[in-house]
Amino acid sequence: MARTIKLAVVGGDGIGPEVTAEGLKVLDAVLVGTDVSIERTDFELGAARWHATGETLTEEDLAAISTHDAILLGAVGDPTVPSGVLERGLLLKLRFALDHYVNLRPSKLFPGVPSPLANPGEVDFVVVREGTEGPYVGNGGALRVGTPHEIATEVSVNTAHGVERVVRDAFARAQARPRKKLTLVHKHNVLVHAGHLWRRTVEAVAPEFSDVTVDYLHVDAATIFMTTDPSRFDVIVTDNLFGDIITDLAAAITGGIGLAASGNVNPDKAFPSMFEPVHGSAPDIAGQQKADPTAAILSVALLLDHLGLTEQARRIEDAVSADIAERSGARSTSEIGDALAARVAG
Amino acid sequence: MARTIKLAVVGGDGIGPEVTAEGLKVLDAVLVGTDVSIERTDFELGAARWHATGETLTEEDLAAISTHDAILLGAVGDPTVPSGVLERGLLLKLRFALDHYVNLRPSKLFPGVPSPLANPGEVDFVVVREGTEGPYVGNGGALRVGTPHEIATEVSVNTAHGVERVVRDAFARAQARPRKKLTLVHKHNVLVHAGHLWRRTVEAVAPEFSDVTVDYLHVDAATIFMTTDPSRFDVIVTDNLFGDIITDLAAAITGGIGLAASGNVNPDKAFPSMFEPVHGSAPDIAGQQKADPTAAILSVALLLDHLGLTEQARRIEDAVSADIAERSGARSTSEIGDALAARVAG
Ligand SMILES: CC(C)[C@H](C(=O)O)[C@@H](O)C(=O)O
Ligand SMILES: CC(C)[C@H](C(=O)O)[C@@H](O)C(=O)O
Repeated sequence: MARTIKLAVVGGDGIGPEVTAEGLKVLDAVLVGTDVSIERTDFELGAARWHATGETLTEEDLAAISTHDAILLGAVGDPTVPSGVLERGLLLKLRFALDHYVNLRPSKLFPGVPSPLANPGEVDFVVVREGTEGPYVGNGGALRVGTPHEIATEVSVNTAHGVERVVRDAFARAQARPRKKLTLVHKHNVLVHAGHLWRRTVEAVAPEFSDVTVDYLHVDAATIFMTTDPSRFDVIVTDNLFGDIITDLAAAITGGIGLAASGNVNPDKAFPSMFEPVHGSAPDIAGQQKADPTAAILSVALLLDHLGLTEQARRIEDAVSADIAERSGARSTSEIGDALAARVAG
Repeated sequence: MARTIKLAVVGGDGIGPEVTAEGLKVLDAVLVGTDVSIERTDFELGAARWHATGETLTEEDLAAISTHDAILLGAVGDPTVPSGVLERGLLLKLRFALDHYVNLRPSKLFPGVPSPLANPGEVDFVVVREGTEGPYVGNGGALRVGTPHEIATEVSVNTAHGVERVVRDAFARAQARPRKKLTLVHKHNVLVHAGHLWRRTVEAVAPEFSDVTVDYLHVDAATIFMTTDPSRFDVIVTDNLFGDIITDLAAAITGGIGLAASGNVNPDKAFPSMFEPVHGSAPDIAGQQKADPTAAILSVALLLDHLGLTEQARRIEDAVSADIAERSGARSTSEIGDALAARVAG
């Protein structure tokens, strides 16, 4: 039965469009010979649009994007735009409006990839980062700005509803993996209100997943283990900000953000999920074909997985794994994309 | 001219008393032959006191501690006490009540210390972590606790006064170091109110320290550089929570929290400053003479530095450096203390 996937594409800023192009190339290649076809809509969002119109993401954009099955995003942020405008007005607005409460970030050290760690061991874990709450809610403000009496606040908002659904999702992911281990990362000795809500929720949900081992680490200690014993991690569940921090660290120890993929997932499929590399827009190397598109390509694999095309997702991952094992010398962004497209088509 | 230092000692929980004892041993040794003497008061604070009396830190304790010139603290926190009670009721209460706005955390990779990084390079930086604001203020709450409608909030409070004084201190420390480089670590693309206050403050103070190079990193990116290029850091200034996270990571890459010292400093000397290892109470190895007291001993060096006894401080650091270079085989907590006491006395 033929199937059409309506895909919204947001290349975004900096290296975003370049790496996205390679993601789409590999997507097309992996679907050759299947009855799945892609119906693609490009959305011009990011710095250029903001400069031209002052808009980041309009209600019309959002409505149009919402009619799609999934979103592929490159990167957002540009030094010519005030910090926060695109991040909050575009990227976070998408994550919040489309209720991407599971921000999925797998970290795997592929054989052959150099890690900055001397003895990384086997690293293969997934961070389930909450995506719609915490200090990311934009619930702060400032008083007497620019005076010696300025006060600026940022409010982390955490709800039973929001924490429970992401904790449940993380437990289910842990249960589906061989090691069946879930580590809650928070800082409940200081952030007692939010921390205790997270802790109580994990304790309350745990009996439904009695074969999953539960562990807890303060976020500061988690960064230590990430460098001294990363193999201890299987599935990590954590808040939006802690997740932001530890997934960049996780990317670093597994060979860099050039390889780290992510999914902003609405597991209920009430809204399209969005897939993007963990890296930023890297304006310093934009337009030079220097960016590694592997993270964007692995994000396409997560997208396929989410849409139930698991065999195609595995083919991309296997292609990346094989390609990495044979890497030598510098290749351009499109050369890497070509090589991976050839492999998945193979 | 003879000088007496009134020292308040809080051994605290877990390995705290053990490592503190070695710190005091080395302190006594380094002062032999000087006209400086120590007048010591022990404060029984921590889990045992809480279990016995329900008290963490009374107003009387605080008043008594405040009459001292400095505080040496071991570690706080115990699994038999609900999470947060001792951390907030004792450790953070001391930091806040005594206005320890500069939480000073040097990270140095001593020659001979194994780093988890394959190629750490030369690592020698200082994190100036703000100590009296941010998400640590205890300014949160919870509503409908235990129900499906629970909401828990944590408020990060940042003031012009609080940010400016710590930024100024960090600039001064950067100026006094050979590389004269200051990196602000924050997340101003998401936490725009707090982040912009920090950024504007750094920009406003910078002209007074025109020979200091200023750099900025988002906290997530900072964790990447910490593992891929830690030599890029000289002085880092950051908020209380980000500082908590990146200093544990910094400790990990420089050989572990067994070596990481810290000072909770009130630079105005309006209140006694407090010196403590970065590590926690490690209840799993408490009372077994297994803990490495080096971090506590290096904290004594920071204490001496703060009190103007810089020559004695250097002697402790040199002793640690020499001892580390020759380390082989396991030694007990007190054996390490004995070895360092012998070296500084030498
Ligand atoms: C660009 C920024 C807003 C974003 C975040 O903080 O979530 C990024 O760092 C990420 O991790 O996707
Ligand atoms: C014990 C805890 C409250 C403390 C903190 O979070 O500041 C510790 O982690 C530290 O870094 O000194």
